[in-house]
Amino acid sequence: MNIAFIGIGVMGRGMVANLLKAGNDVQVYSRRRESAQEVVAQGAVWHDSIKGCVREADVVITMVGFPKDVEEVYFGQGGIILSAKPGATLIDMTTTSPKLAERIYSVAKEKGLQALDAPVSGGDTGARNGTLAIMVGGDEDAFLRCAPVFEAMGKTIRYAGSAGKGQHTKMANQIVIAGAVSGVAEAIAYAKAAGLDVNEMLGTITGGAAGSWQLANNGPKMAEGDYRPGFYIKHFIKDMSLAHEEAADRGLSLPVLDTALAAYRQLADEGYGDEGTQAIIRKYDKE
Amino acid sequence: MNIAFIGIGVMGRGMVANLLKAGNDVQVYSRRRESAQEVVAQGAVWHDSIKGCVREADVVITMVGFPKDVEEVYFGQGGIILSAKPGATLIDMTTTSPKLAERIYSVAKEKGLQALDAPVSGGDTGARNGTLAIMVGGDEDAFLRCAPVFEAMGKTIRYAGSAGKGQHTKMANQIVIAGAVSGVAEAIAYAKAAGLDVNEMLGTITGGAAGSWQLANNGPKMAEGDYRPGFYIKHFIKDMSLAHEEAADRGLSLPVLDTALAAYRQLADEGYGDEGTQAIIRKYDKE
Repeated sequence: MNIAFIGIGVMGRGMVANLLKAGNDVQVYSRRRESAQEVVAQGAVWHDSIKGCVREADVVITMVGFPKDVEEVYFGQGGIILSAKPGATLIDMTTTSPKLAERIYSVAKEKGLQALDAPVSGGDTGARNGTLAIMVGGDEDAFLRCAPVFEAMGKTIRYAGSAGKGQHTKMANQIVIAGAVSGVAEAIAYAKAAGLDVNEMLGTITGGAAGSWQLANNGPKMAEGDYRPGFYIKHFIKDMSLAHEEAADRGLSLPVLDTALAAYRQLADEGYGDEGTQAIIRKYDKE
Repeated sequence: MNIAFIGIGVMGRGMVANLLKAGNDVQVYSRRRESAQEVVAQGAVWHDSIKGCVREADVVITMVGFPKDVEEVYFGQGGIILSAKPGATLIDMTTTSPKLAERIYSVAKEKGLQALDAPVSGGDTGARNGTLAIMVGGDEDAFLRCAPVFEAMGKTIRYAGSAGKGQHTKMANQIVIAGAVSGVAEAIAYAKAAGLDVNEMLGTITGGAAGSWQLANNGPKMAEGDYRPGFYIKHFIKDMSLAHEEAADRGLSLPVLDTALAAYRQLADEGYGDEGTQAIIRKYDKE
């Protein structure tokens, strides 16, 4: 299949490599050409503009940073909506607003294009190994047609419903994580204050009802003060802010999400936005 | 070994059965004689008083409800401290205050007794199957001497340090759970408000960074409205209140724990204290 891929960051590199491995022709565009060097060496074709990149593609995939970046690549001058060939399917894999996903879907439809929202979880490791979880919203026939594309990049691939539902599923995922990672941080802060051996405590509780991916993976990092990013604080803030807005739009108050969001915003204000989400433990360390 | 076991509730029954299976002589006492029928049929010996129950025992185990019950069985008229034989080891397996554990330890020591605090996690299933996690505080030699007793009841058995440290480890466990279960509830509330298929959403996210025991076990119960108790709200409130107090004593603020505690207290006020902790989803359902 002829696939255009826009946004070659740490996630995009792994995903393009897997699309190439599966035998697709992949056209790439990114803000900075250097980002694409690795995938071009693997066989992807570089283009200097979005227009050139997407013109011949059957499927256009976007994996950029923030909602404003998504708006720009879809709706900007020489953007995807105006440049894609009739009948193409547009797949936004950025975690972004469900409302924006619905808007892309509607505008695309008017132009004879189909759009899917397909955010992922699994991080750069999942992108590299082709084991991402992919949550897809949009028309089911478009989803089914793109199944081979998703299967090249992910392991758990689920159709979540109409346009925006992929993004809503990702929001739910991030809300679960907000509670889990906060609980782990508060327990470690408590354990330190109570004079426990933190690693011993983690080893004791990890197999029971307190057990989680966050406890197993971010607990030891918090204990050691290893704040290197697996998942950036600045991106988690974006996701939680979107979830907060969508909940508020529905009259729903999520106090634990809001508490976590406030803590992360404070950390970002203090200059820690490029650290990993486990750095939430900093908030308790200084108290 | 001659073991006295005080407090034959849903946990105590399983634990006594496993102590008997391991070849111990077990003396039992409980507030209500009927509670002990099953273990007496299995070979435990009933006593009408704490004094009679503990008099000849090498090891005295308590598994009662609340800190005030612990105080009563240890310090009351005819209680354990005054009735245990010299050299006996007292093990409180109730989840209770670290401060109370330290007090029992000190008073016991003055009387020539040794005391361990050894709260558990794993619920009634763990008690029945002998797979509890047991977190032990007190003198290490007493812990080592009691190893066969713990091994009869549990799988993960860890020495956490001086008196009170077993309870502190359990507090850390409950703090992790408070964040995790709240995050799951908020995500399910969000998913319902956003029109997602909740079970489909849970299936999509369970294998990734949002994955946890709480998501896998309490998520589907929340989705179905099954509020039967695995772990009672009233007991979780007790544990979280103790954790809050201990944190506050150390000048530590745990906002996510406090948010969960407030939600559960509200539910208990509304009459849901005998439901399982997954019933926290009720708080969002009415909003």
